[in-house]
Amino acid sequence: MIPSAQIMDGAPRMSLDAVLSRIDTDLDAALDRLFDLLKIQSISTDPAYKADCAKAADWLVADLAAIGFAAEKRDTPGHPMVVAQHDGPGPHLLFYGHYDVQPVDPLELWHRDPFDPAIEETPDGKVIRARGASDDKGQLMTFIEACRAYMAEAGTLPCKITIFLEGEEESGSPSLVPFMREHADELTADLALICDTSMAAPGLPSIATQLRGMVKDEFTLKGPKMDLHSGLYGGPALNPLREISKIIASFHDETGRVAVEGFYDGVPDLDEELRRQWAEAGFDEGAFLGRIGMSQPHGEDGFTAVEQIWARPTLEINGLWGGYQGAGTKTVIPAEAHCKITCRLVGDQDPAHIRACLRAHVEARLSADAEIVWEKAGDGAPASVMDTSRPEFETARQALSDEWHTEAVFAGMGGSIPIAGLFKTILGMEAMLIGFAKDDDAIHSPNEKYDVASFHKGARSWARILDAMKTV
Amino acid sequence: MIPSAQIMDGAPRMSLDAVLSRIDTDLDAALDRLFDLLKIQSISTDPAYKADCAKAADWLVADLAAIGFAAEKRDTPGHPMVVAQHDGPGPHLLFYGHYDVQPVDPLELWHRDPFDPAIEETPDGKVIRARGASDDKGQLMTFIEACRAYMAEAGTLPCKITIFLEGEEESGSPSLVPFMREHADELTADLALICDTSMAAPGLPSIATQLRGMVKDEFTLKGPKMDLHSGLYGGPALNPLREISKIIASFHDETGRVAVEGFYDGVPDLDEELRRQWAEAGFDEGAFLGRIGMSQPHGEDGFTAVEQIWARPTLEINGLWGGYQGAGTKTVIPAEAHCKITCRLVGDQDPAHIRACLRAHVEARLSADAEIVWEKAGDGAPASVMDTSRPEFETARQALSDEWHTEAVFAGMGGSIPIAGLFKTILGMEAMLIGFAKDDDAIHSPNEKYDVASFHKGARSWARILDAMKTV
Repeated sequence: MIPSAQIMDGAPRMSLDAVLSRIDTDLDAALDRLFDLLKIQSISTDPAYKADCAKAADWLVADLAAIGFAAEKRDTPGHPMVVAQHDGPGPHLLFYGHYDVQPVDPLELWHRDPFDPAIEETPDGKVIRARGASDDKGQLMTFIEACRAYMAEAGTLPCKITIFLEGEEESGSPSLVPFMREHADELTADLALICDTSMAAPGLPSIATQLRGMVKDEFTLKGPKMDLHSGLYGGPALNPLREISKIIASFHDETGRVAVEGFYDGVPDLDEELRRQWAEAGFDEGAFLGRIGMSQPHGEDGFTAVEQIWARPTLEINGLWGGYQGAGTKTVIPAEAHCKITCRLVGDQDPAHIRACLRAHVEARLSADAEIVWEKAGDGAPASVMDTSRPEFETARQALSDEWHTEAVFAGMGGSIPIAGLFKTILGMEAMLIGFAKDDDAIHSPNEKYDVASFHKGARSWARILDAMKTV
Repeated sequence: MIPSAQIMDGAPRMSLDAVLSRIDTDLDAALDRLFDLLKIQSISTDPAYKADCAKAADWLVADLAAIGFAAEKRDTPGHPMVVAQHDGPGPHLLFYGHYDVQPVDPLELWHRDPFDPAIEETPDGKVIRARGASDDKGQLMTFIEACRAYMAEAGTLPCKITIFLEGEEESGSPSLVPFMREHADELTADLALICDTSMAAPGLPSIATQLRGMVKDEFTLKGPKMDLHSGLYGGPALNPLREISKIIASFHDETGRVAVEGFYDGVPDLDEELRRQWAEAGFDEGAFLGRIGMSQPHGEDGFTAVEQIWARPTLEINGLWGGYQGAGTKTVIPAEAHCKITCRLVGDQDPAHIRACLRAHVEARLSADAEIVWEKAGDGAPASVMDTSRPEFETARQALSDEWHTEAVFAGMGGSIPIAGLFKTILGMEAMLIGFAKDDDAIHSPNEKYDVASFHKGARSWARILDAMKTV
């Protein structure tokens, strides 16, 4: 790429304006590139899409190479990694993202093919509609587009940048930890950057400085030897659907608190300063709840909706089923019932301990003749809390404030992004999470979208952040 | 048919022996005929099998005509009826059965094609394996085979017999009541006979003299406007799976009693004489429970398993589902959850009242932001109690005792057979329920079977009963 008028005597602001202008003029081409990536059906949790995941990795390697990165696809036992490097004068930053996406079911609720991206008009502006538009392809491309514009204008990047993209984030990242250990020398930088989060509110950019962790579990509850006729056996036969409902109902008390013994071990009291900051950020709790059809928050009594999402743990049933689901009636007592659970963790809650407490709670409440078969336990991820005293955090916060013309905030995050904790524990790196998604992006749901404004201003935000970073 | 040596001077016992012998020698041919009927996939609850249901009706009309009945298929708004008539000297008896069968799911649990009948050896003897073998095709054919043998030996039947077969019993019998009203003159007899029940225990024949009624209901519980990401919204969002579990868990108390207010209105205390008779019949409760994997009865405290099935009401969850049911994890809070319920009724419990009580109970326990959408209410059926002082009951009981070499009992019935109540209310007819099914027939379940001995001795039992009836 041929750099445009580059001032060689140290006037970084002019280069930044040129980079920002290029992002503006290049927007349509950037959207075309994003659409190409969105068309690839990189569903990681379903083995039927393995080749598509590899195709997405190939696409990113080619695009990064075209920008000027030294980019490679790296095979793993699962889906491949993408690792790309480019030198620069400032600190060494590692950018992480994931190219895999969630499954699309229920497909019949999508207004268009999830893998046929399009720009749609909405009352709140133009959006990119596709699976992965927000989580995470649109987001990761904001950083890559910022790099592309910088390279085009300056012929180089303001910092040394390593790009590290995985393809298993939606399916538990089984290949991630071994890969990070094996390539620690290549991946260890001064700071990790992650673009996989939301803004704290519409028009209010944020850096996520505490993330909830996660632990998952799944069980089958068995009762009778086989499905039974409810006339012949109704009464004496244990009904697994009644039993599983009793057990699930025991997970919470009437104040919204999780009633599993030991669940709150390691849960800190809410920091009063943080509580005050969040209260003053002006979140419109009514609007937030109204968007999802709620009139009040349904978590623990005594906590606001924001506090419940950012600073309190949860036990959630993600799937529950058993018996006859078809049309009409079937007078059956099923032999078994099934339940999928995920818990969001905060503070020092230990995933393995939480799983053990959950299992003990369930086993203690089983009726005679009921049997629980637990799924093989996977890894969990504890909560993450960042060190916001590091100068990069205020630097980035200021850069965001410049782009969005409002004071950016340090926020909590309801979702779990295990990579942030892994960067700390495996590579000793702090992570800064800056994202431009919106609460109504419907990630993990039908009709996912990403605001065009998030894509555009997100790229501009990264350009500002990288420019500001080079002097930290 | 040419009658064999018929004694014209009134020696009925010789004719009966000839009829019984013919049943014995004709058994293989009778099984072939039953197999032909079993191969027809007459699943009434699923519109995809409408033509198969009509085919089953046609088969029965042809077979009854071949025996000598005046037989017709009668169209209805739903599946057709079969009505057949033959004169005879004794009282007018109406035999009822149903040619439709239950759906087969889960298909993968069947050891062979449900509609490819076969004789299989088991530790308890030979069985006929197929959907409908026991419920109800094998059973209804015991009566038809008895008629066939009688016609072959005697050239006539001992009583005037009307055969009335429907094709919607497994799907709520929507066409039944209008048809019975419209053809009341043709269908009204001195007594109805129904072969759709089990023996009280292996080798212990019974006449079911009290049947449980039934009422069904179904609802969708809605919470958030759409499926939600559990990280973004977990805490404040109402989870319909948690809510539905809380509601279902409230349906029973810890003593096994149904906790829905008003549920026990109309439930009589257990008659002490009946309780004593049942206790003395020698039921092996441990063996009964053990066959289905239970170590104790799970109904109301203070009632034996037999009492719970024959004389106590139930509230049963037949289907429960919501959220993600696929492989792996999906961190979703679903927008809705679903529940299918059936209640078995006793005494004077009124189906409409029970449904109203259930709905009021659920609505009173809904959290804010939860919404219930009820399915359109169908008809229910109250419990039935027969008048066992009528002489036909003892006559039939004695005939059964002769065939099975043990004292037959008057028993309760856990299942609901609404036709028995309809015969009383619409046609003013008492009904006698005599069946030869076994508890382990797995009706409504995979791998349904009917003992060859039940089929054989069932036909012989009907021959004895018809012979004994002609002098009542």
